[in-house]
Amino acid sequence: MAEVETKLFPLEVLRDFSNQVFLHFGVPKHDAAQAAEVLAAADLRGIDSHGVARLHSYFDMLTLGRINPRPEIKVLRSTPTTATIDGDNGLGLVVGPHANRFAMDMAERFGSGWVSVQNTNHYGIAGYYVLKALERNLIGWAMTNSTKLVAPLWGAERMLGTNPIAIGFPGKQEPAIVIDMATSAVAYGKIEIARRRGEPIPEGWAVDSEGRDTTDPNAMINGGALLPLGSDRERGGHKGYGLAIMVDVLCGVLSGANWGPFTPPFALRQEIPSRSVGNGIGHFFGAMQIDGFIDRDSFKRQIDDYIRVFHATKPAPGRSGPLIPGDPEREAEKWRRENGVPLVLPVLEELRDISKKTRIPFD
Amino acid sequence: MAEVETKLFPLEVLRDFSNQVFLHFGVPKHDAAQAAEVLAAADLRGIDSHGVARLHSYFDMLTLGRINPRPEIKVLRSTPTTATIDGDNGLGLVVGPHANRFAMDMAERFGSGWVSVQNTNHYGIAGYYVLKALERNLIGWAMTNSTKLVAPLWGAERMLGTNPIAIGFPGKQEPAIVIDMATSAVAYGKIEIARRRGEPIPEGWAVDSEGRDTTDPNAMINGGALLPLGSDRERGGHKGYGLAIMVDVLCGVLSGANWGPFTPPFALRQEIPSRSVGNGIGHFFGAMQIDGFIDRDSFKRQIDDYIRVFHATKPAPGRSGPLIPGDPEREAEKWRRENGVPLVLPVLEELRDISKKTRIPFD
Repeated sequence: MAEVETKLFPLEVLRDFSNQVFLHFGVPKHDAAQAAEVLAAADLRGIDSHGVARLHSYFDMLTLGRINPRPEIKVLRSTPTTATIDGDNGLGLVVGPHANRFAMDMAERFGSGWVSVQNTNHYGIAGYYVLKALERNLIGWAMTNSTKLVAPLWGAERMLGTNPIAIGFPGKQEPAIVIDMATSAVAYGKIEIARRRGEPIPEGWAVDSEGRDTTDPNAMINGGALLPLGSDRERGGHKGYGLAIMVDVLCGVLSGANWGPFTPPFALRQEIPSRSVGNGIGHFFGAMQIDGFIDRDSFKRQIDDYIRVFHATKPAPGRSGPLIPGDPEREAEKWRRENGVPLVLPVLEELRDISKKTRIPFD
Repeated sequence: MAEVETKLFPLEVLRDFSNQVFLHFGVPKHDAAQAAEVLAAADLRGIDSHGVARLHSYFDMLTLGRINPRPEIKVLRSTPTTATIDGDNGLGLVVGPHANRFAMDMAERFGSGWVSVQNTNHYGIAGYYVLKALERNLIGWAMTNSTKLVAPLWGAERMLGTNPIAIGFPGKQEPAIVIDMATSAVAYGKIEIARRRGEPIPEGWAVDSEGRDTTDPNAMINGGALLPLGSDRERGGHKGYGLAIMVDVLCGVLSGANWGPFTPPFALRQEIPSRSVGNGIGHFFGAMQIDGFIDRDSFKRQIDDYIRVFHATKPAPGRSGPLIPGDPEREAEKWRRENGVPLVLPVLEELRDISKKTRIPFD
């Protein structure tokens, strides 16, 4: 693979720029800082598609008034351990952290807390929310539905988002196990990268607009669809499809948001669905007290043991053994704290465009 | 594929036989009926590997005193919505339903309930538990860890079970969405079927004892391993591996049961792990009040709509469109209620062997 040209930026520079862009649209000070923090978490952990690379989408949506910069977030319904929150069409980067805190507060009082969210927008990386739970010694869960990109197994059109699931478990001396995964075989960003490079994509990633297997990235992008995790029936594509439905129902149907093919887009280039079945997109957060099940310290020591046992697995040929979920992100974080965040030129140009339009200095 | 010879039995005959076998070992009357009901649910829904086909394993374990027929199930720790239950090494078919009821009771009082279980054994199909939750208008979750069969991505040995996840969502006029899936690319039973037929297995299912990709079922069975859902790095094998860890930690570590490669076997032919890190295997159950989030009736109507929208997806070439999770099991149930449960000859011989040894009449 050819190396792509990048330029390094200190994380703080990117976070400050995001923060000022949100302030520019009248987002309250605390919310702007919160939103910038979520984006920075993605840039730090190497999830480049979900950090400042997405700032221009937020910029566009705020410019057009499609996202409410000053939402009044409301609890629509609750029990001691469940709630549905209306995000008032605010930034998911603000509504998400709010709802996540609500879930964590319930968990600290009653053992667990579960919050579905409607009328919200793209919330950044799911992993951010479980990291916040880990800071409070809770097991955190986070899911969100999203714009349609994925075909159901045996379907020939986009019906589901890449609908991620995240969960985290704290260690004592070892770092936490942090699972953060889309339920599609692959991220859309990887199709775009292959197209830019003029390379084919592997089998099992996508179908074309007629639902035929394809290795041509253009065939997926031009009206085709991603495949669910597992790819085909033989290898378990019905399972990835089932997981995507699980996330969609918990986030979309349970909250009263849109679901499936009706989920609104997060970027201007995407089509607006012909039908609306709820409000905005949906998230789902969970938090559980470890002490509600087992002594917290003994749990953490077992997680240390777990990580060491799995790191010591006999390696597959040519590999140095399995990773622990969260390892690659921690590796990226370490490197980027020292060296900065690498931005590719198209992202840089987008940030410069925002800078020009808002007169907020950048670079 | 060659058709395998089978003989049909009314479900009631199989359930009664299981019931009497459990009674034979001193399992209390109510527990024996419960255990037989869980097995029958698998036979009815077409999950043949988890029904009476597994009765001989329970028979062996009870004969050797490795499963406690009269457990004293205890709550080790609880908050209003979380608990850990000690199954006292009872049948998972008895401990599981008990713990699941505990979770559902909490959900009815406080909105949600979450129960981890240690010191238990194989609990049948995960789907059974979410069906029980649906009967009480709850969204149910069920997971269990199990004997090692699956290699972590980039590993060359069995470290994880096939660790299933199940969840169910009720419809109003449409039947429920019931997701019940192992986190491996494929079930072990499919490898055994290929071996019996002398057929190769598809790429992406398994590695041999050195961790090399293999299409030889014998290479997997003789010291090789199944691959996680997603199969390889390119197609998301790290995601299936992450899901298997999630299930293992919630069921095993959180409850104080064994986890990973230390999970004890459920059949005599499997090796006993060299190390013990907890008690028995582990389960994890969850239940949530729908009304804790949204009006129950409106949720069910949305699920109806969801099912109809997904059934109407443009089909892939040569297919009649996507299924809804639970469709194949409902199809099997309908057929088997009318025609009976087909048993293959090896299973029939095992049941006759039990009949001979216990003098309980069969067939």
